[in-house]
Amino acid sequence: MDTSPLARPFPAMPPIEGAVPRVARARYKTWDRCDLTYVELAEGTSVAGVFTRNVCCSSEVELGREQVKLGRARALVVNAGNSNAFTGYRGREAVEQIMAQVAAHLGCEPSDVFVSSTGVIGVPLPKDKAQEGVANALAAEPCTWEAVAETIGTTDTFAKGATASAMIGGTRIEISAVIKGSGMIAPDMATMLGYIFTDANVSPAFLQQCLSAANEATFSCITVDSDTSTSDTVLAFATGKAGNEELTGPDSPGADAFAAAIHDVCRQLSQLVVRDGEGAQKFIEIAVSGAVSDESARRVGLAIANSPLVKTAIAGEDANWGRVVMAVGKAGEPADRDKLSIGFGGVWAAKNGLPLADYDEAPVAAHLKGQDIRMDVDLGLGDGTATVWTCDLTHGYISINADYRT
Amino acid sequence: MDTSPLARPFPAMPPIEGAVPRVARARYKTWDRCDLTYVELAEGTSVAGVFTRNVCCSSEVELGREQVKLGRARALVVNAGNSNAFTGYRGREAVEQIMAQVAAHLGCEPSDVFVSSTGVIGVPLPKDKAQEGVANALAAEPCTWEAVAETIGTTDTFAKGATASAMIGGTRIEISAVIKGSGMIAPDMATMLGYIFTDANVSPAFLQQCLSAANEATFSCITVDSDTSTSDTVLAFATGKAGNEELTGPDSPGADAFAAAIHDVCRQLSQLVVRDGEGAQKFIEIAVSGAVSDESARRVGLAIANSPLVKTAIAGEDANWGRVVMAVGKAGEPADRDKLSIGFGGVWAAKNGLPLADYDEAPVAAHLKGQDIRMDVDLGLGDGTATVWTCDLTHGYISINADYRT
Repeated sequence: MDTSPLARPFPAMPPIEGAVPRVARARYKTWDRCDLTYVELAEGTSVAGVFTRNVCCSSEVELGREQVKLGRARALVVNAGNSNAFTGYRGREAVEQIMAQVAAHLGCEPSDVFVSSTGVIGVPLPKDKAQEGVANALAAEPCTWEAVAETIGTTDTFAKGATASAMIGGTRIEISAVIKGSGMIAPDMATMLGYIFTDANVSPAFLQQCLSAANEATFSCITVDSDTSTSDTVLAFATGKAGNEELTGPDSPGADAFAAAIHDVCRQLSQLVVRDGEGAQKFIEIAVSGAVSDESARRVGLAIANSPLVKTAIAGEDANWGRVVMAVGKAGEPADRDKLSIGFGGVWAAKNGLPLADYDEAPVAAHLKGQDIRMDVDLGLGDGTATVWTCDLTHGYISINADYRT
Repeated sequence: MDTSPLARPFPAMPPIEGAVPRVARARYKTWDRCDLTYVELAEGTSVAGVFTRNVCCSSEVELGREQVKLGRARALVVNAGNSNAFTGYRGREAVEQIMAQVAAHLGCEPSDVFVSSTGVIGVPLPKDKAQEGVANALAAEPCTWEAVAETIGTTDTFAKGATASAMIGGTRIEISAVIKGSGMIAPDMATMLGYIFTDANVSPAFLQQCLSAANEATFSCITVDSDTSTSDTVLAFATGKAGNEELTGPDSPGADAFAAAIHDVCRQLSQLVVRDGEGAQKFIEIAVSGAVSDESARRVGLAIANSPLVKTAIAGEDANWGRVVMAVGKAGEPADRDKLSIGFGGVWAAKNGLPLADYDEAPVAAHLKGQDIRMDVDLGLGDGTATVWTCDLTHGYISINADYRT
């Protein structure tokens, strides 16, 4: 696969004290690359997670949901090339084997070991390959975050990472995070796996609160093709090694700065996934205002972002606001045709339900020729706002998903 | 546009006594074809209708909803080439002008005149062209149903009609129906307009009951691209000229036969729209069973039918049941991964959450090479069933919707 035209270079990412990454070969597929990631986490590491809402989720997701409730983590293992989804008890046994193997090595509880898998579905993760891959990883030299980003990827066309820092009561804390998602050649699902590592000292409950809040405005506001993976997972690990006074809630000194840094990293990660969307040629930001609530604005935004007719119009560099009207109307949210305004690149094309008489299409046409597209939709009903991100729908998407076979 | 490979020939359609169609040129676009349809209906004609749920609907839909409540119709006018949607008060004035012009000609109430429009949106229907077009139609010779099907079409690649008959207490009644939808070259919305004419003597209330019931299992069970038009309309007109004893409810003699005939025609029409789906190369029937209710089964079926990953897999002739699992799981309906079974062309690929060990892919591969694809999905939870219809997602869809401009 060619690298996405919307790719971003991998950022300089600081090491996180208490989080040591390693990669190795499990050879889940007939490829010569690392495909198993192992991150050892210091004792006392807090963990938080958000998971797919797909009810046909993988064993990894089912187990992860339960493990997160305990709040503590000692290790993360990520398998690439096999999602282990829809594999019943055999798939679950393979996950439990990995948890036991790492727990024996670290002298911790199996429930302290988090496992994710991504790749083809319906094939139980082979236990022998997993065992050998984990053994290789445990013995490997520590590696960079960029190597982690490359190893968790499957059909991604570029490695994706984000970083941020914050000051908490005079202590500087660092956040390094990686994600994989979209861009595929084997016909798998557009699985998204994201991992956030920080040396901040944070209670599990407040870490979860920060991650859940950021998730609502970032990962829950992106879409490539409206299809929800069975394996989507974002985990946040806080080792506490920065030595700041523990953040236990929104009133702790420095809590706002930490929450903002987590939000910033989640926003960066989520947008990188869109930038690697299958076949994407354009990155689209849709800002919805005037909705009856923020949640209503988000739903309207996603209805627009998921509309094949809107996405193909942007691919064709066509300011087809009629299709936007259609998408608003089908969203199932309060909307009034005669109060609706729509603009592209900061220029209104229609206001209050009518095309603008003096609408100047030239600047809009120029904007649509670019790679970064901005769409404004005002519903004229209330104060609800949301911004969502998507990519266009192109021949590349069809080629990736229809022209190859499992 | 080339004719869809899934096209069906236009059937022999009987004239309906009391319903006289005419077509004429209004020249809504710079084309040399009839684009205005006028059907005169006998006094006492019953009417029923179902309309789009898109809240940004056109004035035609808003007015139609109110007119149907009165239960009587004397005329139908259909404009092709301009949907008159998102055109505010100016669009509404154009519709009211048409209603007044026809009402004056027939000596009836304006509310007896039903108007539909389909085509580009955001441009008010030009009143002068509408007036001349209606005048031309009122003076034209009666025409065939096939001419009506051609005239209401915009980007359709073939004319679509369906017919049925029924015996009501010794009287034979006829139904002739036409529809337009999908297949486009100008980037409009995939608007669906359907018209059913019968000489049966039916009360408006029972006609509505039959149409609404059929709609749930036919028009509400098809999807091409998940985008809901602002103008979707299906109207049924019953002239009463067959002279049968009036059908007033499900207990009237012959009511079952009539309801079945209406259902049959709606099923034919809805499937013809899918067969002209934009870029369609394959017609897909998805039968869902074992859901907690019929409505739940329908929602699961539509989640599968709307999944870009499922639709591209079928385009690629790939029995990718993993994508079906994903689509079931994201539908938001009760489902249990470990009770789910999936099959193609009558062959089960996975049962009770596990791939079948003795799964023979050869007959499935042969089935997927054909034009008519059958998918079975059993949720293993209850007695709910539904069948939905869709088409595959191909490069043709992208070409039609992205490679052309408004």
